[in-house]
Amino acid sequence: MRTADALHLRLLRLLRDHGAISRAELADQLQIPRPRLLAELDRLVSTGFVTEAGMAASRGGRRSTLVELNPGLRFAAVDLGASSIDVEVTNGRLEPIANYTEAADIRTGPKAILHRVNELLAKARVDGVYEKLDAVGVGVPGPVSYRDGVPVSPPIMPGWDRFPVRELLTREHGCPAAVDNDVNIMAIGERHGGVAHTVDDFLFVKIGTGIGCGIYLSGEVYRGIDGCAGDIGHIQVDSHGPMCTCGNVGCLEAHFGGAALAKDATLAARSGASPALAERLAAAGVLTARDVAQGATEGDVTCVRLIRDGGRRVGSVLAGLVSFANPSMIVIGGGLAHLGHILLAEIRSVVYRRSLPLATGNLPVVLSELGSRAGVTGAAVLASDVAFEQAS
Amino acid sequence: MRTADALHLRLLRLLRDHGAISRAELADQLQIPRPRLLAELDRLVSTGFVTEAGMAASRGGRRSTLVELNPGLRFAAVDLGASSIDVEVTNGRLEPIANYTEAADIRTGPKAILHRVNELLAKARVDGVYEKLDAVGVGVPGPVSYRDGVPVSPPIMPGWDRFPVRELLTREHGCPAAVDNDVNIMAIGERHGGVAHTVDDFLFVKIGTGIGCGIYLSGEVYRGIDGCAGDIGHIQVDSHGPMCTCGNVGCLEAHFGGAALAKDATLAARSGASPALAERLAAAGVLTARDVAQGATEGDVTCVRLIRDGGRRVGSVLAGLVSFANPSMIVIGGGLAHLGHILLAEIRSVVYRRSLPLATGNLPVVLSELGSRAGVTGAAVLASDVAFEQAS
Repeated sequence: MRTADALHLRLLRLLRDHGAISRAELADQLQIPRPRLLAELDRLVSTGFVTEAGMAASRGGRRSTLVELNPGLRFAAVDLGASSIDVEVTNGRLEPIANYTEAADIRTGPKAILHRVNELLAKARVDGVYEKLDAVGVGVPGPVSYRDGVPVSPPIMPGWDRFPVRELLTREHGCPAAVDNDVNIMAIGERHGGVAHTVDDFLFVKIGTGIGCGIYLSGEVYRGIDGCAGDIGHIQVDSHGPMCTCGNVGCLEAHFGGAALAKDATLAARSGASPALAERLAAAGVLTARDVAQGATEGDVTCVRLIRDGGRRVGSVLAGLVSFANPSMIVIGGGLAHLGHILLAEIRSVVYRRSLPLATGNLPVVLSELGSRAGVTGAAVLASDVAFEQAS
Repeated sequence: MRTADALHLRLLRLLRDHGAISRAELADQLQIPRPRLLAELDRLVSTGFVTEAGMAASRGGRRSTLVELNPGLRFAAVDLGASSIDVEVTNGRLEPIANYTEAADIRTGPKAILHRVNELLAKARVDGVYEKLDAVGVGVPGPVSYRDGVPVSPPIMPGWDRFPVRELLTREHGCPAAVDNDVNIMAIGERHGGVAHTVDDFLFVKIGTGIGCGIYLSGEVYRGIDGCAGDIGHIQVDSHGPMCTCGNVGCLEAHFGGAALAKDATLAARSGASPALAERLAAAGVLTARDVAQGATEGDVTCVRLIRDGGRRVGSVLAGLVSFANPSMIVIGGGLAHLGHILLAEIRSVVYRRSLPLATGNLPVVLSELGSRAGVTGAAVLASDVAFEQAS
């Protein structure tokens, strides 16, 4: 990126996160000469991204004028899950204006799912939420080539491999679009408005049906050379462990995560090891991670053990990654975060015991603050960033 | 770093790596407006970092003048090993002008070792190699707080903990200095003049007495939040493995590396499992990794197995890091790199089998090109960078 581009990006992000601000304060905060700032602002006003917002309070000398993001800016944030569509339309400051959530099976394929996304967005337009979108940000539950804007061999998304998601949305809405995997957008969301706010180097670990990791380094998402960094669900934790869906043995995901936990819970119910789970299985016919959480809350020792075992596996992988990457925070999110303090305590215990003391001296291991809203929040940030990058 | 600073750093690095170049070509290569470049160059000429170097060949219009780094620039590169001091003095283009290597025990402490470094540098000055140093770069065999310029709890460097290495050298030589760990300077060296030349995202894995990793992300060394990123020698590879010097069990270093290999070789010699090693132990009274390498070359099956076992352990850790970081190259260096293709083949085999296919589709796993010179080369780059950063 050229230097001038980097400046306008910093400027637009500051207006997004800070709101209306005087030209004088902008020059101070960005530490750039005032003439250069004014020239850049003029350019952004002419493109329609920035507008005047009245006079600032006096700082002693001549009063400075306020600038802000155009109040008419609209971003669409789309969080596609394995079984849900979450669509949000925000203004330039990423404040939600409309939200639509519904069940949908990602396996029905990209055409059906994206058609439904476009219908929801069309509804928002008819409702007067926006006239024209300025960018769309999308998260999908599988590996993505961020550069190409396409999913790449996503295991649970049949029909999506290399489907031109970004291109289709760009064409449909006549604006820039960006596509990323669900874990990255959750990490982006958590940094924008959650527990990792202002933290530049952290790992966001999503424990859902599978396990993945979003990586923030020096204030930016690190995606790796092929865009698949953070795929920690298939790190081996036991060379004699169970077979994983990926074909290898002993992967973290084969030991823990929503799918593995449901399987282990069912076994424990059937073997008689857990009366609490047996009762729930008899009642519902099927067990999920939520049943284990409930069983643990009620004091069922098998449920507590299952969660601890999982936490120990996750912790051992994270301990290695802490030694490698020396982050300043670990955030635990995803559907299994509701396993709560038993899980968190076990992860912390292993990470603190197994990593270099220098790296864990001041390393918070905490739960996501945004919970199920992390994804859609991050998708909105992604949309704004791609809009800002292309503003010129 | 302010924008203007980033420009002069890019400019000086280009002159360092490229040599004399015309103003016109510089403006092209840096993609900045010519007036801005000329102003920046004037500033650097006035500080003495850059000098005129005659007229460039005509490109059609008015002939452009050449500029180059001041030929009188001198950097000192210091690579401290567990048992060696390697000191090099280079010009601004990092071409070695003088080199001094001698045995020294790092355990004699910082005062004795740095006194000897200063004696060697004084000798170079007396020999007419330089009048004044422009910067000193130092690598040490242990964890370093790069920001503070001090070693931090280095296991094999008694007396060095928080010793003000950078401050002492800065005061002694009246120039900027930078201190980093030995693995990072090897990675820096390999990127500057070795196999990773122009590769922006790679892991440099040093397998010596211990095991560590230098991390390049987006063209810069990644040191982590406390400066201890890359400490992969203490990632657990077997929860039932041997006790490590760090107090945990089953660390990678406890299984492999110079120290572990020497121990395993001695056991194999004494148990009768390896005639080749038994013979060498009887002759020399002690075994090192070099004996195992020699035994393997001669076809001793135990030696081959020891190397393969080690390669498999290293490979399993690297497979996890590849899934996590998705780098574009892995470079294997350090003293045990001479175990050669048996080691490399085993590492490759495990990494390719265990990591995400997308991440290994085009992932070379190669040996260091610079070998024992990687460290001192990187220390010179480090010195030049710190000099350039402070030039203004």
